[in-house]
Amino acid sequence: MIKLYQSHPSGNCYKVRLLLHQLAIPFETVEVDTAAGQTRTPEFKEKNPIAKVPTVELEPGVFLAESNAILWYFAEGTPFIPSDKLERARMLQWMFFEQYSHEPYIAVARAWVSYYGIPAGKEQELEERIHKGYAALDVMEGELKKRPFFAGDTYSLADIALYAYTHVADEGRFELGRYRAIRAWIERVQAQPRHLRLRDQA
Amino acid sequence: MIKLYQSHPSGNCYKVRLLLHQLAIPFETVEVDTAAGQTRTPEFKEKNPIAKVPTVELEPGVFLAESNAILWYFAEGTPFIPSDKLERARMLQWMFFEQYSHEPYIAVARAWVSYYGIPAGKEQELEERIHKGYAALDVMEGELKKRPFFAGDTYSLADIALYAYTHVADEGRFELGRYRAIRAWIERVQAQPRHLRLRDQA
Repeated sequence: MIKLYQSHPSGNCYKVRLLLHQLAIPFETVEVDTAAGQTRTPEFKEKNPIAKVPTVELEPGVFLAESNAILWYFAEGTPFIPSDKLERARMLQWMFFEQYSHEPYIAVARAWVSYYGIPAGKEQELEERIHKGYAALDVMEGELKKRPFFAGDTYSLADIALYAYTHVADEGRFELGRYRAIRAWIERVQAQPRHLRLRDQA
Repeated sequence: MIKLYQSHPSGNCYKVRLLLHQLAIPFETVEVDTAAGQTRTPEFKEKNPIAKVPTVELEPGVFLAESNAILWYFAEGTPFIPSDKLERARMLQWMFFEQYSHEPYIAVARAWVSYYGIPAGKEQELEERIHKGYAALDVMEGELKKRPFFAGDTYSLADIALYAYTHVADEGRFELGRYRAIRAWIERVQAQPRHLRLRDQA
């Protein structure tokens, strides 16, 4: 069975659980204590040299890392990836936006504020990250005023990738009150068949 | 004709020029002065709400952003994307690694050190970025000791994505001397048919 090495509260890990659940692909989870350095051991780096979760073991000894690449692997040939070439590339555009312009600000602020504490001397950096996180939310709001989902007219991997940390952004001190289009999109994502919440066990 | 909005020294923009040249796809470039805020104007944000280059105009009024998504768009159906499903996902794994764990450190250090100057009060942050950039190079070195290219046995988009800033990492104070496998891979990348150098006009 597919094995997901994960930290349950991580949005990046949640993305994979959500997709696998929606695709009805069975998997088991292995909890990794990232705060205790369990991704940095030689044993774990044999699985994933990038030393992060999520990491999936597709079959014994065959590993794949990076949440959005894992999503791609499982979604190929399914309606979670648009069949139109341009929409497919646009889906990837939003997934790269998520990893470059959204996650480093919204996910890291959430991790510091709600999970691990703000590292010593990083208060100013937290403010900068919150500022840049709001910039990412502004971009999302602008898009979602124009279309219901990020790529094409239907729910895709881009929505899963961006939903993961957006819907818990309040845990990183972000206020979503003024983002009307984002809040409506969050409801559309949650209304998809076989939705799984972050706190749920798959 | 395809129009590439770019800043010529940017590695992210260079990725697109390199691939288009190797695919013999004609394009024209439009230079954008990012330091002068030209990606932040309302006119530019109509093209790309993420407000970054590269941005390509595929046909009049049809835009695509994020360097690695642009690479994907043009490379679909070509040998630059592996035909094997797992290798294709692994290629994306290394492209997401590039944007999350490599570019924010190596490209930003290069931009500060060699192009725009180190922002006031950011000396300590530069040291941290250089430290994390070396961690990314360590991961690359480990992979390249095991295989000639990042996905499958041949040159792919993952190599283009990682080559762009790695081969000019010295401009961000990185010393590649001890990275023997990376240096050999750089030579393999440069030996590919229709290679284009960063400084070259396409």
